[in-house]
Amino acid sequence: MTAANKPLSAEDSLIARYFKPLATDPGAFNLDDDAAALKGAGEDIVVTTDAIVEGVHFLPNDPPDTLARKALRVNLSDIAAKGATPAGFVLTLALRGADEAWLKPFAEALGADAAHYGCPLLGGDTVSTPGPLMISITAFGRVPQGKMIHRSGAKAGDRVVVTGTIGDAALGLDVLKGGVAAGALVADAGARDALAARYRVPQPRNALALAVREHASAAMDVSDGLAGDLAKLCAASGVSAIIDVPSVPLSQPASALVARKVVGFDALITGGDDYELLCAIPDNRLASFTSAARRAGIAVTAIGGIIAGSSPPSFLDGQGRELTLQRLSYSHF
Amino acid sequence: MTAANKPLSAEDSLIARYFKPLATDPGAFNLDDDAAALKGAGEDIVVTTDAIVEGVHFLPNDPPDTLARKALRVNLSDIAAKGATPAGFVLTLALRGADEAWLKPFAEALGADAAHYGCPLLGGDTVSTPGPLMISITAFGRVPQGKMIHRSGAKAGDRVVVTGTIGDAALGLDVLKGGVAAGALVADAGARDALAARYRVPQPRNALALAVREHASAAMDVSDGLAGDLAKLCAASGVSAIIDVPSVPLSQPASALVARKVVGFDALITGGDDYELLCAIPDNRLASFTSAARRAGIAVTAIGGIIAGSSPPSFLDGQGRELTLQRLSYSHF
Repeated sequence: MTAANKPLSAEDSLIARYFKPLATDPGAFNLDDDAAALKGAGEDIVVTTDAIVEGVHFLPNDPPDTLARKALRVNLSDIAAKGATPAGFVLTLALRGADEAWLKPFAEALGADAAHYGCPLLGGDTVSTPGPLMISITAFGRVPQGKMIHRSGAKAGDRVVVTGTIGDAALGLDVLKGGVAAGALVADAGARDALAARYRVPQPRNALALAVREHASAAMDVSDGLAGDLAKLCAASGVSAIIDVPSVPLSQPASALVARKVVGFDALITGGDDYELLCAIPDNRLASFTSAARRAGIAVTAIGGIIAGSSPPSFLDGQGRELTLQRLSYSHF
Repeated sequence: MTAANKPLSAEDSLIARYFKPLATDPGAFNLDDDAAALKGAGEDIVVTTDAIVEGVHFLPNDPPDTLARKALRVNLSDIAAKGATPAGFVLTLALRGADEAWLKPFAEALGADAAHYGCPLLGGDTVSTPGPLMISITAFGRVPQGKMIHRSGAKAGDRVVVTGTIGDAALGLDVLKGGVAAGALVADAGARDALAARYRVPQPRNALALAVREHASAAMDVSDGLAGDLAKLCAASGVSAIIDVPSVPLSQPASALVARKVVGFDALITGGDDYELLCAIPDNRLASFTSAARRAGIAVTAIGGIIAGSSPPSFLDGQGRELTLQRLSYSHF
């Protein structure tokens, strides 16, 4: 009595063909069971979940391979920020239909990332939807018992450190939508492509997870904008912060757009989709953390300090004047 | 540069108000962090994920409280079938908007079920969508290491046992859609309501999970129809089965509709949404399993036996003739 247009095997064979090769972990049971098993090893299992929706978190014409990578990487970024080692993920895919020309590159890219980050597919659910494509991933990591790094835990005197560069993904989205950055970079395809790639394919900092676990008093990833995410970290920790805005690391294209006044610093630190790590590092751990980051090949930059207090973080320009931000970060509703 | 219509606090405060009360596990960190932690206790963590989509898995006018229960219970049913004890879940909610008249009863019912089944909310993601409402849950259970019950493992000679009654949910959907069952039951509001309730609010058999773990050689839940799900269990186990169709347990309304020839047995055993357990029980364990079920207050019925072979399961009528099934179960594509 429920709708059924095709025989049993259609959905199953589709899943088998494209997703079984990704289920490399013995606990995935080759996707032949109703559930997966994460082996008990005395460690805590860190669990995070992030969904991306067509037209909301990605553009309808984003290619399937970058979507696959983005969907997994936004979760890997959370795993890294918590100081955990990836252990696997489950995938829920809501599709309008079983378009193999879309599924094949999606699954291949997902598999390549799963292998690269050591985060195998454990299971999932494929459902049909009349609406926008949605990719929901729940990812797992392992940490020694009680060693997950929290948003709370930052102390006055800690340094505020970020990885990589901030604001590129927001500029990349603007480029893809034909906004001001696209106009300003009309003659520079290299910069446009670099920024768009930062939006489409985040670079989660899992190589730094162990250093985060060893040295950070608090950490999270920057997904909704540096300003808003720092405000969340401070609120969870019961502290405030002062950020030296000129210290915030920018890529060359972002820096040039700021210099040309195409965009303001405020747009970059509230833009979102950076998937860099934001950490509070005790002063006496900063050198060790920086060394570990260098060994991991990940740039880290101290951009300010944690202070006592409950006011929102202050963002100071080169003259020590506070930036007024129109909004702190992205909000869905 | 990403869209942002409202300040930071709107989404956060919404989540806080309705979902924080459900995050009763210490590993949920009061939903204030980017991730949850499942405490390592030397056990395996069983992971399952199931999503339901408006217009596909539920009706647009299904009430929010029954949706919440169904979304969680379809996952709890998998946890039970694997012989695991519920440990918690994460929720991804794709909403068109933050309608508090919908969210409040949804969260309250979800919280009531989470408490009843001992399966607390650990975290989640709330995203906006221009499309249909979608509720995706990843649920966790615990089993002693290596003790998860699989689809594979059924052996020739095992008895095939199901819990509860089969086919009510498919009839309930038919009633809600105004189909043949609705017509035949026009004068019997009690039967209509009972069947609709079976569709809207599954009764997962978590009280039987320990007995499944102790006695079943293979198990799964019946979500896509008894015939198709038994075929899956047999294929995973490398066996076949013979089912005595008149033994398949039916509720009083379902039984009456079959007697009146309003629906055939085939529609009931291929209908789906039962969320009963389907188990292969070694013959010498059947008495113990049945006793455990009686103590748990859950009806169980032996409906056939596992045989050697690789052919699809046979469904025999009262005269020993094989039923021809138009389709085995629900398929999305």
